[in-house]
Amino acid sequence: MTLPAKNSNPQKGMRDLTPEKVELRNFVSNTILGVYKKYGFSQIETPCVEDINLLSDGEGGENEKMLFKILKRGEKLDLSGTPTENSLVDMGLRYDLTVPLCRFYANNRSKLPRNFKVIQTGSVWRAENNQKGRYRQFTQCDIDIIGIQNPVAEIELILATSEALIKLGFKNFKVRINDRRILEALAAFCGFEKDSYGKVFIIFDKLDKIGLDGVEKELKESGFSQSSTGKFIDIVRQATEKNITVESVRQLLPDIGEKVLADLDFVISAIEKRANSEYSIGLDISLVRGMGYYTGQIFEIGVEGYGSSVAGGGRYDKMIGKFLERDENVPACGFSIGFERVVSILEEQGFKIPRSEKKIALLYPAEIVFFDVLLSKAQELRGEGNIVSIEAKSKNLRQQLDKLAEQGFSSFAIFEEGRPFEIKPLNEEAGR
Amino acid sequence: MTLPAKNSNPQKGMRDLTPEKVELRNFVSNTILGVYKKYGFSQIETPCVEDINLLSDGEGGENEKMLFKILKRGEKLDLSGTPTENSLVDMGLRYDLTVPLCRFYANNRSKLPRNFKVIQTGSVWRAENNQKGRYRQFTQCDIDIIGIQNPVAEIELILATSEALIKLGFKNFKVRINDRRILEALAAFCGFEKDSYGKVFIIFDKLDKIGLDGVEKELKESGFSQSSTGKFIDIVRQATEKNITVESVRQLLPDIGEKVLADLDFVISAIEKRANSEYSIGLDISLVRGMGYYTGQIFEIGVEGYGSSVAGGGRYDKMIGKFLERDENVPACGFSIGFERVVSILEEQGFKIPRSEKKIALLYPAEIVFFDVLLSKAQELRGEGNIVSIEAKSKNLRQQLDKLAEQGFSSFAIFEEGRPFEIKPLNEEAGR
Repeated sequence: MTLPAKNSNPQKGMRDLTPEKVELRNFVSNTILGVYKKYGFSQIETPCVEDINLLSDGEGGENEKMLFKILKRGEKLDLSGTPTENSLVDMGLRYDLTVPLCRFYANNRSKLPRNFKVIQTGSVWRAENNQKGRYRQFTQCDIDIIGIQNPVAEIELILATSEALIKLGFKNFKVRINDRRILEALAAFCGFEKDSYGKVFIIFDKLDKIGLDGVEKELKESGFSQSSTGKFIDIVRQATEKNITVESVRQLLPDIGEKVLADLDFVISAIEKRANSEYSIGLDISLVRGMGYYTGQIFEIGVEGYGSSVAGGGRYDKMIGKFLERDENVPACGFSIGFERVVSILEEQGFKIPRSEKKIALLYPAEIVFFDVLLSKAQELRGEGNIVSIEAKSKNLRQQLDKLAEQGFSSFAIFEEGRPFEIKPLNEEAGR
Repeated sequence: MTLPAKNSNPQKGMRDLTPEKVELRNFVSNTILGVYKKYGFSQIETPCVEDINLLSDGEGGENEKMLFKILKRGEKLDLSGTPTENSLVDMGLRYDLTVPLCRFYANNRSKLPRNFKVIQTGSVWRAENNQKGRYRQFTQCDIDIIGIQNPVAEIELILATSEALIKLGFKNFKVRINDRRILEALAAFCGFEKDSYGKVFIIFDKLDKIGLDGVEKELKESGFSQSSTGKFIDIVRQATEKNITVESVRQLLPDIGEKVLADLDFVISAIEKRANSEYSIGLDISLVRGMGYYTGQIFEIGVEGYGSSVAGGGRYDKMIGKFLERDENVPACGFSIGFERVVSILEEQGFKIPRSEKKIALLYPAEIVFFDVLLSKAQELRGEGNIVSIEAKSKNLRQQLDKLAEQGFSSFAIFEEGRPFEIKPLNEEAGR
């Protein structure tokens, strides 16, 4: 086998991650998971591959159009006649971690604690047409609380996610919060038909991109009445111009359930009290969140100067039930950090990983003579907690030392005839 | 969508990993990676999906028959006429980490250090017919050194892997070492034809399972001559009955290159000197290792009382070159820990993860009253480095406390009317 050089590229939209990239990603992931664990969350893992029917059942929206499907194997694969796409495949690569979580919960419920506080992180796959910053394999990092009906769950999710972002150096970010039931009350108040809410919200969700005038135009073009559209745009304009509060929603939409507003109050004030001045939280009735499965509070975190959000989530009390034998409500609420987004922001900012250990290179010449001394020294230094790499000495020592410095080494020693086996800082010219 | 309960199982041969399982796996993986990093190895990642041609080029042997293949998408998928399996797929899930490493190296060579010491860990997939302990998605954990021709690479790989196993509590294990060139010299000495070596070694590799008599029988049945087979069995019998040394190989096979034996001596004595009495290393001329791509020293680690090996590897100087434009030799040597094997041995042994942090549960009653006090306490305790989980208090408190103890919690407090908010050890009956 001899492959032409071009074939050594990874597949379209996929990435080879070099050591520096993996080091940053591991740092981000360990930092986030460390915080989540401190909040009492524990990690599960599910297979990357799921039943094709589970991945195509409609819950995944647009993502289902981007499935990587896996060919049946052995006798199950029937190529005779005119095969259809569906007849050829039995599994697919997961497009998110929420669908697998629901399946996992249904499968393992009896073994799990009643308050199930769960971390998931792993790769997901979507056959997107490669836009800047969008990959076909990427990492998600989610926390979910299953089994808690009250907004203590929302508070814990927001506190944990905010603390993780702070630990990664993010400052002055803003948590926007809303409730799907406010959106519904608003739509009802404006006179939209109940079965058109979904369509209204999809258009409303584009507010950031197309502005309020754009939303108005699209609502009208979609055939919604002048009066409903006008009322809706009017309220949203008022709400976004001044700082809307839970109290003003109460006045604006008197028909809304008191519990909805009390819960929002409970969450906002608990977070406000603990955010110090490191971040802030505020009601934003223009927050929609794409997925249709949300049933209660929804939230998103944005960072000043970076357009898209770095975290998003909400309550989805009706989804897990669909995976159970009896269709019951299982309260569930989740928050997902945009892992790839966070990593790319840190890369843009030139983030440096804080280092505790010293990195030392021990070099041996082509004619290996003092290897035993070198090896003992290496083991001794490793025992003291240092990172020690044994390296063949290059002919061009100056270039090699520069490369080692680039790789984060801080000192080196050469074990060859006629030199003291001395460990020197890499930036000293002495050894050259 | 309502799925019947049976559909909540993971796909055949795949696993849902519950929190306790993930915790152990993370501990094992962090322990191994921690040691590897101390030895100066750095981690890379490649996509889980590779070009179907790369995965089917013959290097993977039996593994290539167990590929999960991915259906082409969009216009590329042509179902008209009589499609063949090959015409339908363009990618597959990787079956190991060595093929992706070679592709990665070819793709990123200019950016990589000349002595490239690399860690890879991640999932691989093989559509095996599910045997006990064999999964269709499982984790591999490899280190490789690329660019070092001399046996310093072998020494580093063996020291690092042994130290990782010691850190995981393995004791008195044995490193078996051999060299492919000894096997070849042995086969030549016995008069086997050069192009039949591969076949001889495949049979010889079954020694552990079928014994020396079985090997003799299979060699004869495969049509090898009485004289070659007899000579071969005779030498192996002598070599396995007494403790064979590099010196006895020198006497037995005088035609073997002196460098081969000197290198083995160099590696064995360097390791012996540093193994203390924690583990041992010994030449074993019956060690074959399955894969055909090895070119020099090969090694394997076995643990007393557990049949199959926990780590295996060797030198493969001719494989990476095949991925480069010019077919050159790129020295490479790797050692792979049997991650799943190690985890299952630890599980069998009832291994307990050493814990540094305290796990505390703070309970609130259905009528949430002192939540603010609770939340402040939680943040304070987390700030002190504890794991703190806020939990809804169940009606059956006794049962809940038992479950919390099972999850590893050591203390709890209840924040409700008429109780002091006191943190008590979970095994005290006081709170019940």
